[in-house]
Amino acid sequence: MTPLNELGATALVARLARGEITAEALARACLERAALREPVVRAFARLEPERVLEAARALERAGARGPLHGLPFGVKDIIDTFDLPTEYGSPIYAGHRPAADAACVALGRGAGALVFGKTVSTEFATHPPGPTTNPHNPAHTPGGSSSGSAAAVADRMLPLALGTQTGGSVIRPAAFCGVVGYKPSFGLLPRTGVKPISDSFDTVGVFARSVEDAALFAAALSGREALRIPASLNAPRLGLCRTPQWPAALPETHKLFDELPRRLVRAGAHVEALELPAAFAPLADLHGTIWDHEIARCLADEHRRHRDRIREPLIAKLDRGRGVTAEAYDGARRAASESRRRLADAMRDFDALVVPSAPGEAPEGLASTGDSVFNRVWTLLHAPCVNVPAGRGPRGLPLGVQVVGRIGDDARVLACAHWIELS
Amino acid sequence: MTPLNELGATALVARLARGEITAEALARACLERAALREPVVRAFARLEPERVLEAARALERAGARGPLHGLPFGVKDIIDTFDLPTEYGSPIYAGHRPAADAACVALGRGAGALVFGKTVSTEFATHPPGPTTNPHNPAHTPGGSSSGSAAAVADRMLPLALGTQTGGSVIRPAAFCGVVGYKPSFGLLPRTGVKPISDSFDTVGVFARSVEDAALFAAALSGREALRIPASLNAPRLGLCRTPQWPAALPETHKLFDELPRRLVRAGAHVEALELPAAFAPLADLHGTIWDHEIARCLADEHRRHRDRIREPLIAKLDRGRGVTAEAYDGARRAASESRRRLADAMRDFDALVVPSAPGEAPEGLASTGDSVFNRVWTLLHAPCVNVPAGRGPRGLPLGVQVVGRIGDDARVLACAHWIELS
Repeated sequence: MTPLNELGATALVARLARGEITAEALARACLERAALREPVVRAFARLEPERVLEAARALERAGARGPLHGLPFGVKDIIDTFDLPTEYGSPIYAGHRPAADAACVALGRGAGALVFGKTVSTEFATHPPGPTTNPHNPAHTPGGSSSGSAAAVADRMLPLALGTQTGGSVIRPAAFCGVVGYKPSFGLLPRTGVKPISDSFDTVGVFARSVEDAALFAAALSGREALRIPASLNAPRLGLCRTPQWPAALPETHKLFDELPRRLVRAGAHVEALELPAAFAPLADLHGTIWDHEIARCLADEHRRHRDRIREPLIAKLDRGRGVTAEAYDGARRAASESRRRLADAMRDFDALVVPSAPGEAPEGLASTGDSVFNRVWTLLHAPCVNVPAGRGPRGLPLGVQVVGRIGDDARVLACAHWIELS
Repeated sequence: MTPLNELGATALVARLARGEITAEALARACLERAALREPVVRAFARLEPERVLEAARALERAGARGPLHGLPFGVKDIIDTFDLPTEYGSPIYAGHRPAADAACVALGRGAGALVFGKTVSTEFATHPPGPTTNPHNPAHTPGGSSSGSAAAVADRMLPLALGTQTGGSVIRPAAFCGVVGYKPSFGLLPRTGVKPISDSFDTVGVFARSVEDAALFAAALSGREALRIPASLNAPRLGLCRTPQWPAALPETHKLFDELPRRLVRAGAHVEALELPAAFAPLADLHGTIWDHEIARCLADEHRRHRDRIREPLIAKLDRGRGVTAEAYDGARRAASESRRRLADAMRDFDALVVPSAPGEAPEGLASTGDSVFNRVWTLLHAPCVNVPAGRGPRGLPLGVQVVGRIGDDARVLACAHWIELS
């Protein structure tokens, strides 16, 4: 029999609903896996086993059963929880106890899920990494900034976890760890109680071990049943897009993008190469202009009172952000907004685009969480993105492809991602 | 000699810069006024005189002088401060101590201003009122939700204060209290550390006793020098717009809008009546759909864990918000977004619009803070708005007019408001 911690969210919901397993048994299986693997993976900023078991028992006692009844989920430590410390990956917030749950956490608990623990975030969900390692090889980064959420789900410690993306912080760690990461359209999941680092870009996302599981989680959190994967799907029309960032692609990504179209066509998809309009080329740089300016404002208090406790390269980013002029910021925002309107047009012949999730496998070393070069533009565009695992690279580490949809067209992009996952 | 608490921010900055007065003397004058008037006005949720004086002395000792050096400002109690409790107008947060300053507070302190105290907010900046009274007549509401900020500035306790607007929470209390209220274009001032009640609408704004003072404050907080009022101004082209909400206007507003055009034309303005396109008519209702849905998500934790400590009509609003379907919400957001694009077109012949700030004078009684009917559409549109005091109504209470500009065109709308103020 498969250990419970190995099962995905959809399978677990069914077994819990039929009374074949209890929330407590599931929690125990996840805690056992975490106890075994945490010394190497270091996915958690805070894990209190007794609290997890008590929450599972309380759920069993309570009569009500929400759509996520009994499922444990991880919460990136940039997201507030009223009953567990929330440290934002920063020593400034050592032991910090928020007064309230973030909205996405409260909605998860309201749907019957239980908070398993706080997962490691890089410092303020930016670049300075945390201690988490890649579950497939601890000498490699898990990606960031949602490092712990991606690693815990990949390592079978948890079926579900919450993360956030401002640059590439959901899609990249999902790709590096070999799990599904779903960054919804901007605003689909509420961000109240998530430490802000960019008002224009901060987006709550989810990690799971299948697209179906990610859709189940997001549907329950958002109250959008339409996100669930339908029982039958038509073969999608896919635009294969190497993007203006293609020079950053490593050999394994070249190989993947050479082979992928054949696989998808064989499975029945309509696949065409797509080149983005020239207006999209400067967007990756504009993302930097907007983010630098906004993060310097978001962290104005920390910058003023605790500058000596902020690590590089974040402190340089904050200093740079203070130098962005109002003209440069306003111009970048205007260009971003125009490109968002153009996106639907660029995609008009396709259900979704297929683009790289990352340059290649997870890089070696823990000093950097890798490059968000293939993610920043889609974050700026507010487009829904899903990482779908897509085999292994030359060092045996996971590869992924990123499925991108129109703004607000999340149900379709999830369905396409599910189709690609099965193809 | 005018007491220091009576002077506006621009005059005070000049005297402080010339060394004619000290920050401590100014703080003392404001504290004396507050001590005299607080028993009636009740503008403050928290005021610690010793802390204010110590902050003023510390500023004098420090070498650096920012553009707001020595100016005391009030902070609406929906906005976090690291050194004063922040209770969001709710008993759920009695004694709550945030770990950090909100970004707008940190930027104010960074510019040399000092936090004078926390000003009364209605419950979570929504409808259930606080104890503040109208400084012109304590039997009347000061308006809300930024009740204390408007009242403290109007009553000469403070030259400047921060507020927020999600419906009409800056413009309406400014009009009722007879001060300048400036709600910038959405996003101009950072909202990190402001308790979120609507991701689509929450906007930080400022209160002052002249448009020039409001512009000085906002320019320093945003780093946008261009917001400052230029020394010479051309007569503006103004669109006088009674708006689709005109049936809510009381007789004093009818009279004001009959007389105002003549006054403005006499002063040299080009004034024309403007009717908004039909597509703008449903926007006030769509504001409700979007806000209800978003506030139910923003306050998901409070709704789940503390429902019994939320007052009516907020609890009804939260329940209603949970009933808003994804389709209704998405449709309202699309319509809002299209109307934002149409606004510049509707305004193409004008520098700014002149519209009512409120139905009329501040209503009698403290059980309601009045009606935001003339504010919601502009908040939804993300347009910059300035309340300019415009005489008195039949009961001797202040009236105001609202000057509205294109999104992002804040410098122009402030300049027009200044011109109208002097005309």
